[in-house]
Amino acid sequence: MSITANNPDRKSWLHVDKNSDFPIQNIPFGVFLTRDDIITIGTRIGDTAIDLGALHQLGYFEGIPLTDDIFLQDTLNDFIADGRKTWRLVRNRIADIFDDENETLKNNKQHKETVLFRLDEIEMQLPVQIGDYTDFYSSIEHATNVGTMFRDPDNALLPNWLHIPVGYHGRSSSIIPSGINIHRPQGQTLPAGATEPVFGPSKLVDFELEMAFITTDANDLGEPIPIEEAEEYIFGLVLFNDWSARDIQKWEYVPLGPFLAKSFASSISPWIVTLDALEPYRTQGPKPLKKQLDYLQQKGKKSFDINLEVAIQPEKAKETVVSKSNFKHMYWSMAQQLAHHTINGCPVNSGDMMGSGTISGPTPDSYGSMLELSWRGEKPVKLNDGTERKFINDNDTVIMRGYCEKEGTRIGFGEVKTKLLPVFNPKKNK
Amino acid sequence: MSITANNPDRKSWLHVDKNSDFPIQNIPFGVFLTRDDIITIGTRIGDTAIDLGALHQLGYFEGIPLTDDIFLQDTLNDFIADGRKTWRLVRNRIADIFDDENETLKNNKQHKETVLFRLDEIEMQLPVQIGDYTDFYSSIEHATNVGTMFRDPDNALLPNWLHIPVGYHGRSSSIIPSGINIHRPQGQTLPAGATEPVFGPSKLVDFELEMAFITTDANDLGEPIPIEEAEEYIFGLVLFNDWSARDIQKWEYVPLGPFLAKSFASSISPWIVTLDALEPYRTQGPKPLKKQLDYLQQKGKKSFDINLEVAIQPEKAKETVVSKSNFKHMYWSMAQQLAHHTINGCPVNSGDMMGSGTISGPTPDSYGSMLELSWRGEKPVKLNDGTERKFINDNDTVIMRGYCEKEGTRIGFGEVKTKLLPVFNPKKNK
Repeated sequence: MSITANNPDRKSWLHVDKNSDFPIQNIPFGVFLTRDDIITIGTRIGDTAIDLGALHQLGYFEGIPLTDDIFLQDTLNDFIADGRKTWRLVRNRIADIFDDENETLKNNKQHKETVLFRLDEIEMQLPVQIGDYTDFYSSIEHATNVGTMFRDPDNALLPNWLHIPVGYHGRSSSIIPSGINIHRPQGQTLPAGATEPVFGPSKLVDFELEMAFITTDANDLGEPIPIEEAEEYIFGLVLFNDWSARDIQKWEYVPLGPFLAKSFASSISPWIVTLDALEPYRTQGPKPLKKQLDYLQQKGKKSFDINLEVAIQPEKAKETVVSKSNFKHMYWSMAQQLAHHTINGCPVNSGDMMGSGTISGPTPDSYGSMLELSWRGEKPVKLNDGTERKFINDNDTVIMRGYCEKEGTRIGFGEVKTKLLPVFNPKKNK
Repeated sequence: MSITANNPDRKSWLHVDKNSDFPIQNIPFGVFLTRDDIITIGTRIGDTAIDLGALHQLGYFEGIPLTDDIFLQDTLNDFIADGRKTWRLVRNRIADIFDDENETLKNNKQHKETVLFRLDEIEMQLPVQIGDYTDFYSSIEHATNVGTMFRDPDNALLPNWLHIPVGYHGRSSSIIPSGINIHRPQGQTLPAGATEPVFGPSKLVDFELEMAFITTDANDLGEPIPIEEAEEYIFGLVLFNDWSARDIQKWEYVPLGPFLAKSFASSISPWIVTLDALEPYRTQGPKPLKKQLDYLQQKGKKSFDINLEVAIQPEKAKETVVSKSNFKHMYWSMAQQLAHHTINGCPVNSGDMMGSGTISGPTPDSYGSMLELSWRGEKPVKLNDGTERKFINDNDTVIMRGYCEKEGTRIGFGEVKTKLLPVFNPKKNK
């Protein structure tokens, strides 16, 4: 079945700004609270949010095998579990409904009033109930930078790194959508030169520029997913800020990995851009530097050309873009990550989320964390307001953006934006 | 409110064997499929399973604030979210209904036919939908044994171990109830002396004797749980076999911790024994060897005296008990684990599960894994059928049991039993 929704010549009867991330070729999926306080599944064209629950009730998805309440839910999990064929039918149909040449909804004022919302009338929610969240470590530049700083510049990569898409299990409960403020975490750290830890606020709160993909039900316990089938189980991607407390991490992470240094919060952009929408932006990833085991060997363009940027916005000041990177730098592809994740028979379900790991590029202005951008604090990053940052200050807002662009069509992710508040105070904050 | 269900003098009109884990003082909670193929929430007295959904419909919980469908669900998550006061009211009421002196249900043949099941008529399910699963590493004997084997006998414990209840995020999707067979996992390992990894079946599949606790909704993002409140959020405990592939783990786990070595399967006993039922078995845990930071300091008896054992049953042979341990050996208590887990503001939800880590005792016959019992394979463990084991063989069944006993009352967990099948074969196993 072809992806007619991707037709670059299509125009929508809804207004779309020239630089919008959401032309009719995008059609992402999200969950929002409407002006009537109803939770629904929706999509977005330009700056108009579209209530898919209402569209379905009005019969616009006739002929597509969908349960009546599939869009009247507070997560996308069940829709995602319906599988790629259904996602594609729905996305193609939405493109048809909003195509400039289709006058059915366009000329039905009453239906439009029910279905369409301005962005300021809705409140975006977490799009999926995340069952399990895994974070990979798949940028060779990031792994090399970290290894150079903390271990040995001549042997920056650990012995397993070129053989394994290294990853670890993360915490789902603290994943939040863009727009939710977080608090600076407290915890144990070991001050330089000390032998006993101290308790207090983390002094080294950092962002990690990542993307994450959302899966559908993929396999039963015990059954690996072959790499050539892996992409079939990927619904789409979001921007992902994997907040990190570097000082807490340093003291806690040996031998079982990062724990509280990561689980205080992770933020995602609320619109899931489908893998289908990203098809035109496929590209070749980096060439393997070592022969990979058979179950990780892949053919074809398995990476995607997605421009990424991070900005820091201090309280009452304008933002400064501090990093420009690209998803295509990832050494290990999503297909390799998923094949590896399931090679032991680990089940992957609808709504699971897998983070890429920090996406650093080859140049210092493309690094994906303050740890790298300020090189452990040795080279503070200058902001437009004249201040400097080694890490993130209280009341700073971190904003990540991402988009693909080719031959005049731009498919974007919007943004993930999170403000770091001071340490939680039980007396003041309750 | 007192826990009248724990009254040791109470007898049930249902038959209970002298050595049963499930006297009327236990009243655990689980989920089962009935003879009519209906999923319901239930409890167990002796060898009788009790359908709480049916009991509720017949009016036996009148006066307790419960929604009509609270027990007609396929997980305990909503009931657990109702909180400790409700759990206690329900458990006390069940004890009253089945008390030898209460003739209401006892003399109602029709109601008994609806509500009571023989164990061979039901099929136990996973009792909760596990949102997030965390595994701790809280036995000092286990951490010391592992450190002695793999690092330095004179500095077996890592510097953070006596300060932090070390833990890591685990995989929820591969947690299964007792009775489900698993396959030997495949993956990458680095053979001794080699520089390149190979792919194949794990040669070192091991069990880990653990217990796990299930939580209720505890805190919002950003809010720590004070240690003195922590136990309020613990619903109950299960036995937990944290299956491990030692060779996969060794190659993959630096620097981000265990991943595929653990996520192929973890098995739990299906009946959740409430913390209330365990009250009479409280005991003092080990004395801290170093001063602990304020947020981890606790008063009173925070450990529980729970006898544990592991048996291996080869195909067509009788079982051999290979380890006898006790939950009271845990250096860090559940309250400390939960206070630590949330000190950074990480939210804990109803149905989250936290494993203790391998529970090894001080003597070699009380170690909680084959890694320790066979000391990395140097001292094979003899089984009753004349064979030996360094690790777990294909078609071996591993059985864990646990119970408390005091003044003639025994509160037990039943068992968690899992058979290790050979590597999954897509042609044969489909």
